[in-house]
Amino acid sequence: MGDKTLEGKTTRRGFLAGGAAAAAGAALVPAAAKAEGDPAILNLPSWTQELGAGVDAAPYGMPSKYEAHVVRRNVPWLTADSVSSINFTPLHELDGIITPNGVCFERHHSGVAEVDPAEYRLMINGLVDRELVFTLDDLKRFPRHNRVYFLECAANSGMEWRGAQLNGCQFTHGMIHNVMYTGVLLKDLLNEAGVKGSAKWVLPEGADAAGMTRSVPLEKAMDDCMIAFKMNGEALRPEQGYPARLVVPGWEGNMWVKWIRRLEVGDMPWHHREETSKYTDLLANGKARRFTWEMDAKSVVTNPSPQAPITHGKGPTVLTGVAWSGRGTIPRVDVTIDGGITWHEARVDGPSLPMSMHRFYYEFNWDGKPMLIQSRAHDSTGYVQPTKDALRKVRGESSIYHNNGIQTWAVNANGEAENVEIS
Amino acid sequence: MGDKTLEGKTTRRGFLAGGAAAAAGAALVPAAAKAEGDPAILNLPSWTQELGAGVDAAPYGMPSKYEAHVVRRNVPWLTADSVSSINFTPLHELDGIITPNGVCFERHHSGVAEVDPAEYRLMINGLVDRELVFTLDDLKRFPRHNRVYFLECAANSGMEWRGAQLNGCQFTHGMIHNVMYTGVLLKDLLNEAGVKGSAKWVLPEGADAAGMTRSVPLEKAMDDCMIAFKMNGEALRPEQGYPARLVVPGWEGNMWVKWIRRLEVGDMPWHHREETSKYTDLLANGKARRFTWEMDAKSVVTNPSPQAPITHGKGPTVLTGVAWSGRGTIPRVDVTIDGGITWHEARVDGPSLPMSMHRFYYEFNWDGKPMLIQSRAHDSTGYVQPTKDALRKVRGESSIYHNNGIQTWAVNANGEAENVEIS
Repeated sequence: MGDKTLEGKTTRRGFLAGGAAAAAGAALVPAAAKAEGDPAILNLPSWTQELGAGVDAAPYGMPSKYEAHVVRRNVPWLTADSVSSINFTPLHELDGIITPNGVCFERHHSGVAEVDPAEYRLMINGLVDRELVFTLDDLKRFPRHNRVYFLECAANSGMEWRGAQLNGCQFTHGMIHNVMYTGVLLKDLLNEAGVKGSAKWVLPEGADAAGMTRSVPLEKAMDDCMIAFKMNGEALRPEQGYPARLVVPGWEGNMWVKWIRRLEVGDMPWHHREETSKYTDLLANGKARRFTWEMDAKSVVTNPSPQAPITHGKGPTVLTGVAWSGRGTIPRVDVTIDGGITWHEARVDGPSLPMSMHRFYYEFNWDGKPMLIQSRAHDSTGYVQPTKDALRKVRGESSIYHNNGIQTWAVNANGEAENVEIS
Repeated sequence: MGDKTLEGKTTRRGFLAGGAAAAAGAALVPAAAKAEGDPAILNLPSWTQELGAGVDAAPYGMPSKYEAHVVRRNVPWLTADSVSSINFTPLHELDGIITPNGVCFERHHSGVAEVDPAEYRLMINGLVDRELVFTLDDLKRFPRHNRVYFLECAANSGMEWRGAQLNGCQFTHGMIHNVMYTGVLLKDLLNEAGVKGSAKWVLPEGADAAGMTRSVPLEKAMDDCMIAFKMNGEALRPEQGYPARLVVPGWEGNMWVKWIRRLEVGDMPWHHREETSKYTDLLANGKARRFTWEMDAKSVVTNPSPQAPITHGKGPTVLTGVAWSGRGTIPRVDVTIDGGITWHEARVDGPSLPMSMHRFYYEFNWDGKPMLIQSRAHDSTGYVQPTKDALRKVRGESSIYHNNGIQTWAVNANGEAENVEIS
């Protein structure tokens, strides 16, 4: 496809040769089929002639059997084994801004801890006036709050630092999910313990076998961090930290410690394994940046994409994707279908909430010719999502974290899409 | 409990005798246990010592085994058989405003149709310029919109017209759910067909064996109605109309035709079965009101409630519930714990969206004495949720629909709650 070089780059000129950019401004609704002669509407299907299943069939409901392909998927070569691995969100199969709990991406360091809620405890110790231990019921006696936040792994899109590698937005961008959390404010728990004046940091610790720990600045802990026990209305799922996890809005997912068991208050960061040998950004000069917590503004077109080709041919087409920023809302997303020669402002639809995923659409009339599709997010601070090359100039290609560069999909005349880079 | 009469009524004076109303304004955080000596935090649990399940375990995730009680439930005596029955949302187990897809209440008239999306068709006929048939892919080529709406069955709380009957908010108020829909506007489809000047009504028809039909005014159809194909990000669940349903924001659930197969445009309502012999409001004088579509403002305390007693004894207590209105948002909810002697403004938390469920909380220091708990919703039009007795004065007790009266839970000194009425 196109004239890819060994580095996986496609030139705009080569790929789009012979094809004008798609016409804009044309009618945006499809000409539907005429009613006459379609057996699927003229004949009564079996489900109209027979009684369906009763309410006893599914006390806890599941998706249709026709949606069995909408699942989390992993990339076997990315990690050593299944208990220290990744299962990606199928972004190309979803719409809106809520990620359903069943397909929220999962990343574990020692598998999914299966915690008995009756035995669950959360301890606060260190530089506090009173060391405390809470049961789950204790936590639920503090004032509760409901917030929609994205959770993105710092390594999301990490394989793309060294060129276009994974063929599908599930794999390039699927280490993110966006749910409504219900929980209590971390500051309410810390205030109950009484934080000493010398305190500057908090260390959340997970109850899984990895004993995940990360240093969180006290300022963030006392701002908007939560201990959540519900996601999208129901209990946290086991792979998301049941019965309680830390929520660190806008910051990298690794800090959102799951199955949270302990909060130590201290005056210095702990420099534990997952904030030194991992989750630091190795620069071209060999130095590593630490503590790059905030997730920069980012977006990706989910449809069309390699796993979701255009199957209806030319004519009215809905391009859609998601955008988010760890610093606020997304007031604007630009979209191009000609590799950046012309940009169009997309329509951002649905609730616009800070540090939450946003949904965007661009409706256009596809002329059936090859396209180079990109999206570019602007966040409420004025920050604009950069190109991958712009990021590489500053940070080199040695990191696997914090790649928020613009993603390109090359779509051919058959509607098939491929992960490429353009220069 | 209390001095209930034969009609299931409890007097305020009798029930609260000897108990002062609970103190307000006290500390709202619980005194947690001291860290010393709790074996559950001192000993390493099994899940900290052993690797957990890997990512291959659940491509589509499920709740923890400890949450197996969080399911839809039915009331066997309410309906004749399981294919024409009801399965209620476990409101008392949820929090926030999103109902997870697995426990969204279901109501069918001929069971759950299992529709093959490849064979799905939607026809528009009647008073249109062009009769059209859409495939599911055709629908997805129109501009998409994302909106959070509650869906409430007109018969929700219907058994309560004749006194307190069902012991749990799952059964008294569980014919409601609240999800984010993704779909296309009905007006975009109707405009594609070209609605004739004489048209005034639309008849959506379901593809299930019940062939559900309801008359919808064209004005509503051209306003905010949607054909939805996603709920909370993923495909509609089979019991919610997979692959496409009608969304009629703020109006009674029966009109939200599932498995929608046809839209007929006409100049008069059709007076079909489900809008004449059913879904009309039988008044005391024997006349029946038709076409009472909008769902009036309503609320219910979900915790504490009969299925969710207070188990922690006196002290800091979180009372919570949900409120909604078919006419807009819910700017205010009042709560009483003494049967209406004193009212407190609850804290409405989370996104406040029109025709969406709202979550409210009231944090107080329970003195351990009996309570009579109620909530009262105010909507953005100024309408205030009435008492059940006020409703009965106007409408009698013969209907089973549109009961939005104030619900009372009597809580005894052990924290157990019961469905009562007070006079």
